[in-house]
Amino acid sequence: MPKFLDYSAPDFEAAFSALLSAKREDSPDVDAVVAGIIADVRARGDAALIELTEKFDRVSLTPDTIRLSAEEVAQAADKVPAEVREALELAAARIRAYHARQLPEDDNWTDDTGATLGWRWTPVSAAGLYVPGGLATYPSSVLMNAIPAKVAGVGRLAMVVPTPDGALNPAVLAAARIAGVDEIYRIGGAQAVAALAYGTASIAPVDKITGPGNAYVAAAKRRVFGKVGIDMIAGPSEILVIADAQNDPDWIALDMLSQAEHDDSAQAILITDDAAFGRAVAQAIEARLETLERRAIAAASWRDFGAVITVPDLAIAAALSDRIAPEHLELCVADPEGLSAQITHAGAIFLGQWTPEAIGDYVGGPNHVLPTARSARFSSGLSVMDFLKRTTLAHMTPAALRAIGPAAEALAISESLEAHGLSVRARLDKLNG
Amino acid sequence: MPKFLDYSAPDFEAAFSALLSAKREDSPDVDAVVAGIIADVRARGDAALIELTEKFDRVSLTPDTIRLSAEEVAQAADKVPAEVREALELAAARIRAYHARQLPEDDNWTDDTGATLGWRWTPVSAAGLYVPGGLATYPSSVLMNAIPAKVAGVGRLAMVVPTPDGALNPAVLAAARIAGVDEIYRIGGAQAVAALAYGTASIAPVDKITGPGNAYVAAAKRRVFGKVGIDMIAGPSEILVIADAQNDPDWIALDMLSQAEHDDSAQAILITDDAAFGRAVAQAIEARLETLERRAIAAASWRDFGAVITVPDLAIAAALSDRIAPEHLELCVADPEGLSAQITHAGAIFLGQWTPEAIGDYVGGPNHVLPTARSARFSSGLSVMDFLKRTTLAHMTPAALRAIGPAAEALAISESLEAHGLSVRARLDKLNG
Repeated sequence: MPKFLDYSAPDFEAAFSALLSAKREDSPDVDAVVAGIIADVRARGDAALIELTEKFDRVSLTPDTIRLSAEEVAQAADKVPAEVREALELAAARIRAYHARQLPEDDNWTDDTGATLGWRWTPVSAAGLYVPGGLATYPSSVLMNAIPAKVAGVGRLAMVVPTPDGALNPAVLAAARIAGVDEIYRIGGAQAVAALAYGTASIAPVDKITGPGNAYVAAAKRRVFGKVGIDMIAGPSEILVIADAQNDPDWIALDMLSQAEHDDSAQAILITDDAAFGRAVAQAIEARLETLERRAIAAASWRDFGAVITVPDLAIAAALSDRIAPEHLELCVADPEGLSAQITHAGAIFLGQWTPEAIGDYVGGPNHVLPTARSARFSSGLSVMDFLKRTTLAHMTPAALRAIGPAAEALAISESLEAHGLSVRARLDKLNG
Repeated sequence: MPKFLDYSAPDFEAAFSALLSAKREDSPDVDAVVAGIIADVRARGDAALIELTEKFDRVSLTPDTIRLSAEEVAQAADKVPAEVREALELAAARIRAYHARQLPEDDNWTDDTGATLGWRWTPVSAAGLYVPGGLATYPSSVLMNAIPAKVAGVGRLAMVVPTPDGALNPAVLAAARIAGVDEIYRIGGAQAVAALAYGTASIAPVDKITGPGNAYVAAAKRRVFGKVGIDMIAGPSEILVIADAQNDPDWIALDMLSQAEHDDSAQAILITDDAAFGRAVAQAIEARLETLERRAIAAASWRDFGAVITVPDLAIAAALSDRIAPEHLELCVADPEGLSAQITHAGAIFLGQWTPEAIGDYVGGPNHVLPTARSARFSSGLSVMDFLKRTTLAHMTPAALRAIGPAAEALAISESLEAHGLSVRARLDKLNG
């Protein structure tokens, strides 16, 4: 049973806190296995990759076939129906346009001492993109990861995707071509992450790895972090809908089910200022669950983690939303902009009843890789910033050093870092001498 | 003996690769101990903090004295010599001015479908700053961590600093006051990180933890990552100086020693296009090592990890620098801007002979918390961005949904996510019906 919470009930705070702290993910501890796989790939390179791919994916590779040829990619991608290809192209264009606006600017200025200060952004040289095989193989995720990298200016983008029993996913390869992925390797799991991080004879190492994966992939990303950069480790997806009674309960039900159908551990929560509307949405969810293709998954998510919260007014909904810090937040209310302005912690906000969250998954433009499990309190969705780094710049003149050098020397001495102080003092003496 | 490498020698590539891959840090495995400490603080809160502080710092606390009172802070800070206080204030003003320019802008626009898109930056609500006790207690680090948080708009900034045997560090407390730290707790180690992440009766939890620390602190930060955000885990400091023969060898020696004196594991490398100049710098380092206060540390660093590399021209120096991806890079050459333009991977660049790296440690303005161990290939120094997060915004109109909704539906169907497709289809049917 999903939970029904009433803000005015005496036990609300306890029930809401329990909802917030419910553990939705039970990751198996695969760290030891993953450590062994990474060590094996580091030690034996391609030979380890070939052996592990035979074992896990039942595919026999040679060093020459680890990478897909351009012909293979083209042939597979050409199997994609025209409608899907056109949809991928529309999505890619919109994602590209949105992310191009995120490109930060360099800065350079001279301050009142005459010192020139600034910074400069440069792209990561090479990035790796993990794409899962099996159930969660989403061409939209290829676009969402690859396009920000390419907009940032990443020169070399290498994708890994397992092909269990040799099956290529045409839509994934079409998305990779549209997004400008440079290299595609038919490997997966911890071994693919290790190959991207450390390189093998067939695969040059990258500097940053992004993309979703199972527990093995997540553990491998954690282990190679430091050697390379990684994106966040995403948890199960979640949506919070704040809706007033002026909505079609079925639309809201579908929006909530579009998270619930992702995963048993996904979470869909409705906050409304109308208890009857809340019940109507819950009824609509039950009705849709009777026929939904992924009803087993969606029903489990809704039963175990779903909730409907009734509040006396929408300002309270905004405050509760900030405590949830949702990955996706839909505001289906009369003044969505006004309510949005009251929200501080959310990965992505979808404003108004014509913006179902699924638009954001595919074609809206913003990224669909977003912070889960309340991490919107301190982190952001994937963006071009994840593929850029900043170098700070400082250029002192003799006058600038004369103005601020003595303070640096005083602090160096107070921190007992003599050479720091002397490096400034030697120059000041030259200027004064 | 530091290493002397000649780019023209036949064994250069092997020697340079060995230099790049030299393991400088040998972190003890304290993870199991740290896991126990974190569990203890989560279970027993203040009682665990008090017990662990008694054990490790030989300080008896009560729930009322875990936090320093305003009077204690003021009394200790007032002991700071006027010269140091004024230096801290100058440094703070310059750091504030530099970081204020980093504040990113929100964006909001309407595209050709009529959809309104954008994003909004908001500060982390509460941040925690770890400040080490003992040898590496640097008031400059307090400024470098606290000021970006305050510039970002963090409402609550809580600092933890161990006070072994009860000793308060006046300059650290003065820096905290100048930087606007809101709360200061006299605790340290993994227990302080646990308290910041999970909260106790005396310490409200924060959303993000930054600041340097020993192996226990680093392990604790790794463990609480996900519950809260953390900054990078910094390795030993490092500097690369690219210098031509038109420099005073003693200045370059002091610049290199100002990294070497930090830590046995620090690394200082010189690349020069003049072999005789390289030898002169090495001699100057030996001479300075005879009298330097921290000569034991600096000599060990120079002996074990120091290097002088001779190259035929400076363009090669730039290429080698990108393979090193140094934390600090000094360009002491005739055209530092020209050489800087050839560099892609560096945490901070110091241009020209009047910009010793120590200026950047204290008063330059840019942050001194920078990516180590080649991580400048994929990450950046601390900035206001570390204390901000971005919420993406999308608001579809009926016309916009009509324009792009069918593509979303097609992709949802191709990914077998039926509810995603239906959430769009239900709205399109309403518009068409």
